[in-house]
Amino acid sequence: MCESRTIWWDGGLWLIDQTKLPGELIPIKMSSVRQLIEAIQSLRVRGAPALGAAGAYGIALAADLSRTSNPFDMIAELETAAEMIKDSRPTAVNLSWGVDRVLRAASSRESTEEIREAALREAEEVAEEDIRINKSLGKNGAKLLDDGDCVLTHCNAGRLACVGWGTALGVIRSAVQAGKRIHVYACETRPLNQGSRLTAWELIQDDIPVTLICDNMSGSLMRKGRIDKVIVGADRITKDAVFNKIGTYNHAVLARYHKIPFYVAAPLSTFDQRHEEADIIVEERDPEEICSLAGKRVAPEGVDVYNPAFDATPLDLVTALITEKGVFRPPLMPPV
Amino acid sequence: MCESRTIWWDGGLWLIDQTKLPGELIPIKMSSVRQLIEAIQSLRVRGAPALGAAGAYGIALAADLSRTSNPFDMIAELETAAEMIKDSRPTAVNLSWGVDRVLRAASSRESTEEIREAALREAEEVAEEDIRINKSLGKNGAKLLDDGDCVLTHCNAGRLACVGWGTALGVIRSAVQAGKRIHVYACETRPLNQGSRLTAWELIQDDIPVTLICDNMSGSLMRKGRIDKVIVGADRITKDAVFNKIGTYNHAVLARYHKIPFYVAAPLSTFDQRHEEADIIVEERDPEEICSLAGKRVAPEGVDVYNPAFDATPLDLVTALITEKGVFRPPLMPPV
Repeated sequence: MCESRTIWWDGGLWLIDQTKLPGELIPIKMSSVRQLIEAIQSLRVRGAPALGAAGAYGIALAADLSRTSNPFDMIAELETAAEMIKDSRPTAVNLSWGVDRVLRAASSRESTEEIREAALREAEEVAEEDIRINKSLGKNGAKLLDDGDCVLTHCNAGRLACVGWGTALGVIRSAVQAGKRIHVYACETRPLNQGSRLTAWELIQDDIPVTLICDNMSGSLMRKGRIDKVIVGADRITKDAVFNKIGTYNHAVLARYHKIPFYVAAPLSTFDQRHEEADIIVEERDPEEICSLAGKRVAPEGVDVYNPAFDATPLDLVTALITEKGVFRPPLMPPV
Repeated sequence: MCESRTIWWDGGLWLIDQTKLPGELIPIKMSSVRQLIEAIQSLRVRGAPALGAAGAYGIALAADLSRTSNPFDMIAELETAAEMIKDSRPTAVNLSWGVDRVLRAASSRESTEEIREAALREAEEVAEEDIRINKSLGKNGAKLLDDGDCVLTHCNAGRLACVGWGTALGVIRSAVQAGKRIHVYACETRPLNQGSRLTAWELIQDDIPVTLICDNMSGSLMRKGRIDKVIVGADRITKDAVFNKIGTYNHAVLARYHKIPFYVAAPLSTFDQRHEEADIIVEERDPEEICSLAGKRVAPEGVDVYNPAFDATPLDLVTALITEKGVFRPPLMPPV
């Protein structure tokens, strides 16, 4: 299993440019908070847990780049950076969580040097914790998979969506590590094809058998009995719903109709038990993502487009939530 | 409403190259049966009813191009052409239907001149009949739509899928012509994007309001109450199932789950009441269709791909079949 990281600190903040995969594996160094925000918005770094680390490292980066010698000014700068970073992808709860955690760790320090050190230390801890958590989560979830299972997944909830290991794909990795043979059906995940670009790539790297399909093929595969389980990640889990990549809800309804278990694998940092589905505004993305394929226009000029980034799957369609603290079958929820 | 045709005879066989839409509207002349077969296989001409006309005109083309003066030799040539054309897209029942109909009309003639004339006359009749049938079908289906309805459709069952007017979009056109305001949600229809390329283009040409979405957004729109009805076309309707573009089944299950009517609009020539779902082999298409977007590789080299052209929706998920002979609610079927 590949143990390399998606985002890391090495004399500065580095991340793998996921928009270049699967063609090229290119690490890029973030020279400013603005560049990090651009990387978040253009999905060079994406995936709920990776965004948590990106948010955390973003504050460490702001501290590292700050030129002030006044700790109060520095904290004020970090707070400004925090707001900007959090606003860059508002639906992703982990982003805010990572930002706030590092901001809190830095805020009580008395010198700029201490602030810098505390911010980086906390960001590193967020990143290392992410891998530890995913491995626990993976181990908990692996028990739900049987030898020989065919598992459908949507988008990329793999190591590329995290600092390492992965959530939904982490469960699959842990099952494979435990000696189970798992075949993955990876949905391409329109409009940005994280399934074809990232999930298929990751699994091939780890020699886990994978078949790439279009999102619209999930139902007919289920009807043919070729899918045993569905596992997806999550961007935010409110009291009543799982927000995840657009298309998740379709698979959830189809799984219910075909009596196939539908699992959501997510660390506790994804849970937002203060809000309900109705409170959450789902970001709509650029229509061009649907109107063009690899830069070639495929839709007529001026066509109206609906392009939400996420959908909400009500918890009653979720068979179980797989977390680092165990497996919870709704309405049972993890203590957060 | 646009009354122009998708396929026609004008000193030879012409068709609109649908792979060039929506960018360019290019008519191409078929200089051989082999070129027509290439056009069918590469989806320059596609859609069940249009394929019926393509098959019919294909025999007329074979007769037109034949150099023999012996009527028996000419019939033998037409029979060979018929087999080749029918094999080019085996799932499409209309293709065989059109081929056989013209072959039958030509076979009883005594001179090569008579064979040529009879083949072309019958092919023209197939094409004109297609438009008449779609208009009847449209009128029958329009009664099912209410003023203000939002209608989801998949793939392109429009005038581009027919000789003219359309089946699923024909119903929408007829409703609009009858003064009803209809808003269409067009699914892009992966992997070949007939929804974005063709359906959105057609509807914009006719000033019918259309919103383009990814296939995986249908469920969340239904859950939000934004879809009143679903209408799709069909490639083949057996005793027990509707074969249509891959992804149709997903929408059918989602419509059932959300208690939304799911309509299939298809002429009687699409019905194949001699076969059951299990008898039909669904063609699998080139993996490259999923691995590349507009020529740019988006999936890792060597990835396994599943790419069926069609799926089967069992009739119990179909609210009604809309035909030129009226509206039939399964298990009621039209007399064919």
